[in-house]
Amino acid sequence: MTFSDRSGRKPIVTVLMGDRPVVGLERVGALAEIRETDAAGLPAALRGADVLYLWDFFSGALEPAWNHADSLQWLHVAAAGVDKLLFPGLIESPVTVTNAHGVFDRPMAEYVLGAMLFSAKGFGQTRDQQHNRVWGRRTTRNIAGARVLIVGTGSIGRCTSRLLRAAGADVDGAGRVGRSADPDFGIVHASSDLAGIVGAYDYVVLVAPLTPQTDGIISADVLAAMAPTSVLINVGRGRLVDEAALARVLDDGGIAGAVLDTFAVEPLPPTSLLWGMKQVLISPHMASDADSWLEDLALQFESNFLTWQSGEPLPHPVDKALGYVPTSDSGK
Amino acid sequence: MTFSDRSGRKPIVTVLMGDRPVVGLERVGALAEIRETDAAGLPAALRGADVLYLWDFFSGALEPAWNHADSLQWLHVAAAGVDKLLFPGLIESPVTVTNAHGVFDRPMAEYVLGAMLFSAKGFGQTRDQQHNRVWGRRTTRNIAGARVLIVGTGSIGRCTSRLLRAAGADVDGAGRVGRSADPDFGIVHASSDLAGIVGAYDYVVLVAPLTPQTDGIISADVLAAMAPTSVLINVGRGRLVDEAALARVLDDGGIAGAVLDTFAVEPLPPTSLLWGMKQVLISPHMASDADSWLEDLALQFESNFLTWQSGEPLPHPVDKALGYVPTSDSGK
Repeated sequence: MTFSDRSGRKPIVTVLMGDRPVVGLERVGALAEIRETDAAGLPAALRGADVLYLWDFFSGALEPAWNHADSLQWLHVAAAGVDKLLFPGLIESPVTVTNAHGVFDRPMAEYVLGAMLFSAKGFGQTRDQQHNRVWGRRTTRNIAGARVLIVGTGSIGRCTSRLLRAAGADVDGAGRVGRSADPDFGIVHASSDLAGIVGAYDYVVLVAPLTPQTDGIISADVLAAMAPTSVLINVGRGRLVDEAALARVLDDGGIAGAVLDTFAVEPLPPTSLLWGMKQVLISPHMASDADSWLEDLALQFESNFLTWQSGEPLPHPVDKALGYVPTSDSGK
Repeated sequence: MTFSDRSGRKPIVTVLMGDRPVVGLERVGALAEIRETDAAGLPAALRGADVLYLWDFFSGALEPAWNHADSLQWLHVAAAGVDKLLFPGLIESPVTVTNAHGVFDRPMAEYVLGAMLFSAKGFGQTRDQQHNRVWGRRTTRNIAGARVLIVGTGSIGRCTSRLLRAAGADVDGAGRVGRSADPDFGIVHASSDLAGIVGAYDYVVLVAPLTPQTDGIISADVLAAMAPTSVLINVGRGRLVDEAALARVLDDGGIAGAVLDTFAVEPLPPTSLLWGMKQVLISPHMASDADSWLEDLALQFESNFLTWQSGEPLPHPVDKALGYVPTSDSGK
């Protein structure tokens, strides 16, 4: 029985717009009353709304408007990370939160594989030499048999592990809870002990969500424990890493290089030492964004909306206490 | 029965040295008389030699010295391509030629995958922006489902196809003889018809040997038939491509980009227009050279030598008329 059958009216869907044009609301618009609003209009647009669709997830407009959310049942955010979204009033409420679970898995897995090969094959130095028309032949690493630690065992980490393994790398995981015989990782180390284990890996890949437990998880101690030949790849959140300590360890040769797609402050300030480091690739928070991403996000919301209005449980809800979508299997 | 048992003497192995230090002759040296020579000494060192080991394969010293090769049975070249080596006197002789078959398969397959991801994820532009401290977020392509044509179905092409398929790409081959149901490629197109087929592919990858049939195979017509969104990756030989036509088609936007590891003249002359093209990565003929390559080449010669002196047939001989090692299966 649909929402309309149950209530005798169309559901009200409030859409918080943003800098990028909202796409894909045609089908939902035929079944619901759509209220498009900007941040200033959010309090009024929340009153009576059944669904809130945060198309512009970077907005901090929700918390101050929260006491106007008098009828809200479901909030969908068109992003993977919900660290900037969650606040006590939302966490304690019965509102179901869903996110862009799965949409970014494959683009991010490919970005990580590309980052590994970028480092292994020395493409950064090759590009720099090209600017100076320098022909500098040298030998490079293979990724076959390379040891990789993926920090973060959600759906993105799992998709990444499967792709890196298919390409010949030897992958373990690190997550909140250590375990063995994981279908995608085999061994999953407890991420509370990273300093004790990172030294064994050629690549340390960060795809974890930002939570109180992961904030600063790649500390100076963990960086010091990494191998001098190893490479850090961060496509998770900038604040997972102690950025000042990272700049020091890179400068000292404590690790060989880094590919960084996220930073504590974005855009990365022009004063950051990281910009000028030849052994670092500065990538502007784009690992997740395949050409089709806006369409993929729109299709996902449409699919979730059809599920919700039919009265069925929404797939892959965010665990608001944990701060992410828990997965313990291949996410299928 | 070994060579020494048969002949009552140790075999004579002449080694043409080069710019890089020869490694790994210890075991062979215990079983053979080693004559190390430079190009000037080659005529004298060839007389009476049973085996010639071309460690420095770029030398053109062999053809003028060939009439001194009065006892030669086997020639091993520590390289994959034999196009610079073969000449009529050698082709018509009974001397068996072997090359670095298999040693470069995995490094080159990884380089091609890295080149695809470099292009798909826009790492060149990202690196260029980094130099100017520009934060330029944008969307990028996935390689999942990308259509790839690999021109060259020898052991390198096969290893490349297997790796790209494992990473999610959709790969066909092009070779001297068209066929279907190939174990590594499925469809293999006849490379005589490239202009008729290249338009359907997102990536065209060149791993073919340079032969009279493949010289200039990527002609202006073939380049004109490629899709405007497509990328050319050449890790085979520079002369496979009409380089002037390539520069024009890149400049006109006829194709989207290129990753080039080999060139008609190497090092690529500073005057080449290709150096300055942002959509091109100029790589200094290093796709094949993993960190372990010298050791891998040395181990391969040692293994082949032990086979030869035992009187067994040498594995994977070069077909001197074709100009490469023919393979019709997975090369296993």
